[in-house]
Amino acid sequence: MPSKLLIAAPEAAYEVCYTTPFGIHIEGEIRINGREVMARVWSERDRFVGRVLGRAASIPAQDRYTGYACFIDDTVLAIGDYATVQAHSVVIATGSGPYIPPALLVFGDRLVVNDDVFNWEDLPHRIAVFGPGVIGLEVGQAFARLGVQVRVFDVQEAVGLLTDPMVVEQVKFDLGEEFYLHPDATIHEMKLDDNEAVIVFTELDGSVVTGRFNYVLACTGRKSNVDSLNLENTTLQLNKLGILVFDAKTLQCGTAPVFIAGDANNILLLLHEAADEGKMAGRNAAHYPDIEVLPRRAPISIVSADPQIAMVGQRYVDQEPRNIVTEAMDFTDQGRS
Amino acid sequence: MPSKLLIAAPEAAYEVCYTTPFGIHIEGEIRINGREVMARVWSERDRFVGRVLGRAASIPAQDRYTGYACFIDDTVLAIGDYATVQAHSVVIATGSGPYIPPALLVFGDRLVVNDDVFNWEDLPHRIAVFGPGVIGLEVGQAFARLGVQVRVFDVQEAVGLLTDPMVVEQVKFDLGEEFYLHPDATIHEMKLDDNEAVIVFTELDGSVVTGRFNYVLACTGRKSNVDSLNLENTTLQLNKLGILVFDAKTLQCGTAPVFIAGDANNILLLLHEAADEGKMAGRNAAHYPDIEVLPRRAPISIVSADPQIAMVGQRYVDQEPRNIVTEAMDFTDQGRS
Repeated sequence: MPSKLLIAAPEAAYEVCYTTPFGIHIEGEIRINGREVMARVWSERDRFVGRVLGRAASIPAQDRYTGYACFIDDTVLAIGDYATVQAHSVVIATGSGPYIPPALLVFGDRLVVNDDVFNWEDLPHRIAVFGPGVIGLEVGQAFARLGVQVRVFDVQEAVGLLTDPMVVEQVKFDLGEEFYLHPDATIHEMKLDDNEAVIVFTELDGSVVTGRFNYVLACTGRKSNVDSLNLENTTLQLNKLGILVFDAKTLQCGTAPVFIAGDANNILLLLHEAADEGKMAGRNAAHYPDIEVLPRRAPISIVSADPQIAMVGQRYVDQEPRNIVTEAMDFTDQGRS
Repeated sequence: MPSKLLIAAPEAAYEVCYTTPFGIHIEGEIRINGREVMARVWSERDRFVGRVLGRAASIPAQDRYTGYACFIDDTVLAIGDYATVQAHSVVIATGSGPYIPPALLVFGDRLVVNDDVFNWEDLPHRIAVFGPGVIGLEVGQAFARLGVQVRVFDVQEAVGLLTDPMVVEQVKFDLGEEFYLHPDATIHEMKLDDNEAVIVFTELDGSVVTGRFNYVLACTGRKSNVDSLNLENTTLQLNKLGILVFDAKTLQCGTAPVFIAGDANNILLLLHEAADEGKMAGRNAAHYPDIEVLPRRAPISIVSADPQIAMVGQRYVDQEPRNIVTEAMDFTDQGRS
């Protein structure tokens, strides 16, 4: 959410710099007030979160428990230390949290995640972003347009969720004009020094550079919030990556009357997918053992960068090369686009 | 086309005025250079038109005639005064021109149409726009945002192609904040005086006002360009409104081997519809008398105003009230919209 909230300010900052070709002239300086930029992000965040909390609070008191829940067995939950619930069935909808690769922990308190950006009172001068995914590209471009020096790195050589080589090259080219986007940079050293993050890396031109940053922003994916649910008290299985084993079609975990929906199952972290899943998980939990299969929408992914990037359907990398035909259309010179 | 070309400048002019809430401050005056605004519109126009002319010129010389064509009979055409063509079949794709209600002719040389806007070297001070359709709303808002005083009138009390009363009221409210949009104004007098257009009308508040305008822009619809085709030499029929009678499904005119496609048939004046029709008219003309039915897309209509207005499917006014159910959704308070 922070990246979407942040975008309006840099869009405005960017557009006021490019009005001259249209005959619109700004006779004076354009000043970006970082504190005001961040204050608006806070206030919008509070407004959005307030609305969600309000909806939760509107559930009648006799129908809800407030407190951390954990499993005693598959269908018995302890709520804090004050209640025990015997359930017909359970839906896990605990959302997800940021995943941080251990290698980045070297940056100590200079290491931040997406949510921490909310706590910034002003814009930093220089940031490094790890993970050129949806959030990394959005935040990278947004801060760059607000005058922050941004370098986006990765260790996996991927850009966004994009895997089509032609699109990846175009994205690197277009976004790379505004900020340093170098997903395949070789990083030689990462350390904390004098309260700054220091990264030694090989530049695009082959030279070795030492970059110093106020913050390192980890946009390196999400993980399911199930660590504190005491899953070891249940029959539910974790796979070798520590992820709950469930059926993506019915959202059921193993053969238990337990279902997992939304970001917590880490399938597609999108609002409309979470809504579909929440509805079906609730339906299946209520009617258990009568379980239905969730009709899935075509997968989509959108990067709210400029230019915007959208992906619909299966990923390029998941295709058998011999089974696909590729068609490309360039709208650069399309007058009506 | 002029309205779409014009829109970029007023969007830029508008956005630079509303950056403060985002923490972006412009320390100085915002100056709109009308000559530069119009110069860009010309240059884009020339670029677009040049591309279309280039494509026409790329047809091999032995496959094309240059000159005005008119019918000698259903399948014989005279090209200028230099050639006669005996055709297997004919496609009429002569486009459309502006339709001007006779009542507006009183404004003499102060009366302009959409295309004439291209010839303006600078922005006028005050304009009246007749016809709150797609073009009227787009041009009205665009000039208003460039500092022109705009009043949009109509004699038919319709807004755009919109006929749903709830949407019409919302559009009047939203766009009416930026310029005077009064489709149901009572007009008492229209005349030319001292090289200005003078319109006496009843204001929204009931008072009678005399408005003086540099130009009156007629955005009062389009008519088919078939007047000079000598249709009287053919078996083709005109209806009582002077429009060629044809089958909208096959694009065939009567039973003749003549087809009419694109804006010339005045069904849906949209690029993609014209492309569909051109392809099917060409196919049917080539295979005549083997004629196919054109699979029609769902009708759409888009007004590139701010907020944008889109209409998909049949119009409200074309529905039987007892056959429809209406659902409205207000996104005003939708944080993600």
